Amino acid sequence: MTEPLAPGAIIGILGGGQLGRMLSVAASRLGLRCHIFEPGAAPPAGHVAEFVTTASYDDENALRSFGESVDVITYEFENVPTSALDLLESLAPIRPGRNALATSQDRLDEKTYLRSIGLEVAPFATVDSLDDLQRAIESVGTPSILKTRRFGYDGKGQARLTSAGDAQEAFDSLAGAPAVLEGFVDFDLEISVIAARSTAGDIACFDPGHNVHVDGILSTTTVPAPVDDTVAQAAIAAATAILDALDYVGVLGVELFVTTDGLVVNEIAPRVHNSGHWTQNGCAVDQFEQHIRAVAGWPLGDPSRHDDVVMTNLIGEDIDSIAGFAQEPGVAVHAYGKAETKPGRKMGHINRIV
Amino acid sequence: MTEPLAPGAIIGILGGGQLGRMLSVAASRLGLRCHIFEPGAAPPAGHVAEFVTTASYDDENALRSFGESVDVITYEFENVPTSALDLLESLAPIRPGRNALATSQDRLDEKTYLRSIGLEVAPFATVDSLDDLQRAIESVGTPSILKTRRFGYDGKGQARLTSAGDAQEAFDSLAGAPAVLEGFVDFDLEISVIAARSTAGDIACFDPGHNVHVDGILSTTTVPAPVDDTVAQAAIAAATAILDALDYVGVLGVELFVTTDGLVVNEIAPRVHNSGHWTQNGCAVDQFEQHIRAVAGWPLGDPSRHDDVVMTNLIGEDIDSIAGFAQEPGVAVHAYGKAETKPGRKMGHINRIV
Repeated sequence: MTEPLAPGAIIGILGGGQLGRMLSVAASRLGLRCHIFEPGAAPPAGHVAEFVTTASYDDENALRSFGESVDVITYEFENVPTSALDLLESLAPIRPGRNALATSQDRLDEKTYLRSIGLEVAPFATVDSLDDLQRAIESVGTPSILKTRRFGYDGKGQARLTSAGDAQEAFDSLAGAPAVLEGFVDFDLEISVIAARSTAGDIACFDPGHNVHVDGILSTTTVPAPVDDTVAQAAIAAATAILDALDYVGVLGVELFVTTDGLVVNEIAPRVHNSGHWTQNGCAVDQFEQHIRAVAGWPLGDPSRHDDVVMTNLIGEDIDSIAGFAQEPGVAVHAYGKAETKPGRKMGHINRIV
Repeated sequence: MTEPLAPGAIIGILGGGQLGRMLSVAASRLGLRCHIFEPGAAPPAGHVAEFVTTASYDDENALRSFGESVDVITYEFENVPTSALDLLESLAPIRPGRNALATSQDRLDEKTYLRSIGLEVAPFATVDSLDDLQRAIESVGTPSILKTRRFGYDGKGQARLTSAGDAQEAFDSLAGAPAVLEGFVDFDLEISVIAARSTAGDIACFDPGHNVHVDGILSTTTVPAPVDDTVAQAAIAAATAILDALDYVGVLGVELFVTTDGLVVNEIAPRVHNSGHWTQNGCAVDQFEQHIRAVAGWPLGDPSRHDDVVMTNLIGEDIDSIAGFAQEPGVAVHAYGKAETKPGRKMGHINRIV
């Protein structure tokens, strides 16, 4: 068991988007301070963090002084370059650890790992060439989705195949990036579990939420999810198995498909997750604080749900309606303070207590 | 009706303590940024604010550049010098307005005003000399409390009289500061109402909480308060009357004594209030966000209580137990990030959902 970070200790956060922003706010509730490292200018997290470094992930001097200024390092997204992590690791502990990050950075490694610990995943096959893709179509079938192994999010880096005849076009669209062909899963609904593991190995899982996507982007998460208790318990057991197998410290998001044959793990995210934003208004301790507690060596908080919540993302120009939502009974608004509104960009969310 | 502040607008906050800290966090949920003005070094609010000015209230240059950098000015305590407000007022709107601040800065003015709008207050008399005090004792009686008209808080600037014989000692202890002698009120319990009024004149009141003080400092606030609904409604009506009479914009804290003869207003605070901290874990929109909404020209949020809460202050070394509290079911912790722990200093609080 690690000693909890003392009051006033500094958490380094790689990435300054909305997740870093809400992590920094959560850290303040524990008397901890944050230092944001973010390549982009005017990061949303900088509005509520004491220290901000604006530098690229290949700026060794900036990385070094950041690493030397903090007591622990965490991250708000999984695509931090390996070279940056190698340097930072020599300066402060990185939580969640490198193995969790490496596993989830690569769709092939992730699926292989999940299968190795006994969890169901969608049928998949590796694709490095057009020949590979044609063989993959034979094993996985169509319809299916070709996805880059790395750096994909919110539906980006993906091509859908409805028949074998789509192979050439799909392959070309990924411009030679190493890829995985994933079979479609015939599912009833998607749920996710936001789960945390402390440095002492304690685990706390929030109740599973029901996720609905629109145009490949999460639109709503509803808790409780409309599933039987046995399904909810199985989802929590899957998340627990992943946390333990990875000797994980922090919050992990696990997306699962509910099928007539049981649960299929869609993907994992080694960080706080959009589908856990409902916890801000449904629980005494939200996912952001739970993550900070874990990486700071604190005990985890009570994950029980005091109210039912529907979380709705505000995408692009949805944000212009925020003052209207703000007047509705039982609605909490969360704006991300992004400088520019763009179509498809997550600009904020609302939690409706129901 | 004022136009709501646009995303990215900057709220200036006078004072960088825990109230400013929690106001800044609340502003971030609305996509607004904060600039803290605070004479003391390392203000707790600076951990979660984008801009901090460290300067005294008589530094005109610092006040001017602060005032020019913000879209609206609010404050976390009532003892801002008049000269500073005079300068700032020429640069940006101050909310709540000067009349509310002036009224509450002076115990005599406050009591006179509250009585003038038909509310009950404790018997009182002004004391500028020992002769005044002796006359005041005749009208108010003993036991009673001599209080400085200005700059008192948490039991400071007060002397208790158990009989007329205590007059000289009590008078000397205030070192010639203008004072008020207040009669004791024989009350069953103290409650408070945290009430907000928007620029449009809309009013939203949180449910009254029951306050228990120890050594002159708030120890716990419990909601719902153990009072009949008629008492709760009367308390809310009193708060509403004050808000309207002052043409108030922002959150106001109103402390009231519940007596067998009805409600007696103890004091008002033109700001967010310690007895409203429970709203962070009992309501979709807490007092801090409600205040920011009001001063930013936003619509007020739903003040209804989704859960019962007991708020307990962590005073002095109580803060050392915070990680223990953090493990209890239904408990949310809120540390203030103060650099030094001192006896009697408010270091944090916990909200227990019950």
